[in-house]
Amino acid sequence: MQRLESNPKKDGFRMPGEFEEHSSSYIIWPERPDNWRLGGKPAQKVFLEVIKTIAKYEPVKVIVSKNQYSHLSGMNLKNVQIYEMSNDDSWVRDCGATFVVNGSEMRAVDWKFNAWGGLVDGLYFPWDSDDKIASKMAEIEKVDRYRLDDFVLEGGSIHCDGEGTVIVTEECLLSEGRNPHLTKEEIEKTLCDYLGAEKVLWVPRGIYLDETNGHVDNIVNFVRPGEVVLAWTDDTTDPQYEISKKAYDYLSSETDAKGRNIIVHKLLLPKPILITKEESEGVDAVDGTLPRNEGDRLAASYVNYYTINGAVLLPVFGDENDQNAINTLANLYPDRKIEPIYAREILLGGGNIHCITQQVPKVK
Amino acid sequence: MQRLESNPKKDGFRMPGEFEEHSSSYIIWPERPDNWRLGGKPAQKVFLEVIKTIAKYEPVKVIVSKNQYSHLSGMNLKNVQIYEMSNDDSWVRDCGATFVVNGSEMRAVDWKFNAWGGLVDGLYFPWDSDDKIASKMAEIEKVDRYRLDDFVLEGGSIHCDGEGTVIVTEECLLSEGRNPHLTKEEIEKTLCDYLGAEKVLWVPRGIYLDETNGHVDNIVNFVRPGEVVLAWTDDTTDPQYEISKKAYDYLSSETDAKGRNIIVHKLLLPKPILITKEESEGVDAVDGTLPRNEGDRLAASYVNYYTINGAVLLPVFGDENDQNAINTLANLYPDRKIEPIYAREILLGGGNIHCITQQVPKVK
Repeated sequence: MQRLESNPKKDGFRMPGEFEEHSSSYIIWPERPDNWRLGGKPAQKVFLEVIKTIAKYEPVKVIVSKNQYSHLSGMNLKNVQIYEMSNDDSWVRDCGATFVVNGSEMRAVDWKFNAWGGLVDGLYFPWDSDDKIASKMAEIEKVDRYRLDDFVLEGGSIHCDGEGTVIVTEECLLSEGRNPHLTKEEIEKTLCDYLGAEKVLWVPRGIYLDETNGHVDNIVNFVRPGEVVLAWTDDTTDPQYEISKKAYDYLSSETDAKGRNIIVHKLLLPKPILITKEESEGVDAVDGTLPRNEGDRLAASYVNYYTINGAVLLPVFGDENDQNAINTLANLYPDRKIEPIYAREILLGGGNIHCITQQVPKVK
Repeated sequence: MQRLESNPKKDGFRMPGEFEEHSSSYIIWPERPDNWRLGGKPAQKVFLEVIKTIAKYEPVKVIVSKNQYSHLSGMNLKNVQIYEMSNDDSWVRDCGATFVVNGSEMRAVDWKFNAWGGLVDGLYFPWDSDDKIASKMAEIEKVDRYRLDDFVLEGGSIHCDGEGTVIVTEECLLSEGRNPHLTKEEIEKTLCDYLGAEKVLWVPRGIYLDETNGHVDNIVNFVRPGEVVLAWTDDTTDPQYEISKKAYDYLSSETDAKGRNIIVHKLLLPKPILITKEESEGVDAVDGTLPRNEGDRLAASYVNYYTINGAVLLPVFGDENDQNAINTLANLYPDRKIEPIYAREILLGGGNIHCITQQVPKVK
């Protein structure tokens, strides 16, 4: 397939909302022992549950290293295709392709990936295999791609409504480890050009202690154009309170690209979740990879859910607020089944269900 | 995708003739320096010519190691998809999937691969990456597969007419390094079961000094059902003469699965081609890999051509018989363009254009 030198907006392409119809979903199989405890085995069980759950609704494409290929292949999974591909970790939302469409054709956007901050505050080194995954997904999908050699972005740091509006956080998009050579206005223009959008909404910060420099996909998601959910706490003593309050005030006061006021639904967070001694000890301590220390607070959030054809995959934590999250989303998504998945093992790796998945839009 | 426990014949599937319509062709990018001289660079130029020539007629899927991925990806090839995949060498005809069809659906046959003879007289060690390629091709094609854990076969050791007849050589199929635990009758039954065939024709031997134990695809090919080409020499002092004569007499006296007499077209071989000192010195000498010694005679043959939609890719050698081969095939394939490719570099690696390609049949 070929590399394009234009941009999606110029060519009439846009990134659809995640809630629009998918043709399939991607996932990368986890294994690196300096991020996933016990050689990734507990995480693999949860990833497998995610894969099987998605596969009930739409085809799944699983990217897997050479070493883990036979393990996965031997499972004989239905509605699942397996692709050998070298990778540095398993966050396809962030290193994978962003797909854009024009009604009859699909193309890929291949952002530069630097492991959430490169040599400034990236989470591991090197990240060269991850940076090639978007290109390899474009080959699999048989689509040409726009490659940005000079613009760092992860898919989890943007949410699109498919109708011209993008939501990001200032904490992430203006971070020192991404694109310090660009002004905020230049970043906005690049986002609009490559997502086929008109307006960027800048939530100040992401979830408290989120190691991605506050990815938007852990704090805000589009239910549909003009309507978002926002991670929320009523505990005014929690550092998260002020973060969520500012996001609420900002979003409630803004309009989207179509001029609509934005409806903001609060989604209560789980109580703070800390890494246990056993969990910490299961991770290989390695120079250059973010450590997983006992007692560290994790950036748990129900907003890190994934919307697929006919369902919503919702991370739950065995928390008293799980049921509230299920009920809230059931009301917001009357045409989709809510599929709760106990996802503490994904959270321990630094993200959740939305971070480990990437949709391929359906092209008519 | 899933592994099937039945067999193609039982399920109503057959391997089509190569001359039937393709949906695409596979190729593996060459690089191993103990087989391809000068780090594979001269061979890569010829493989690239093969890729570009096929891509004029049908889509090409190129399998490439992680290390060579960016090299190939940077070429921006049209009508070509690139897949990262670990491999031991670049003979997709032999290690790749054999595709079978039933009119509306396709499936893969995943033979056991042991590098042309395993620990008896295999050509390199290990071969575990190659043995997984068929399975990975089935995933790419989104088809289920029949895996034979206990039957060694390479795709180059069979030719099918798509109407019930298979041609093989005794030299290869009865070799000590393949399936010594099986009788000739058991091998016939396995071939018929997994290729959806009725009759196996056993040519005694392949091309003189062919390191594959005489693969049929270097000496005989089906032009169409009931009609084959046979590699031939008129030089009665050449050891090849007796081999070709016996094949001629055998095939001329046999009928195919449909009861037809077989028309045998002789295709004159090039004059013997020997490895030069410079060519030999360009190959890394490595324990366990077949050496490429100066003066060794190569198993050159025009029969190692590849039939695709609308064309025939013909290896030529700068030999006085090149033009005869072009003319002969032009007469035999009036509806296809003959595409001669100077293929000495592929020959130096131990095979030719047919050995480095694998067709995916079109399913209606």
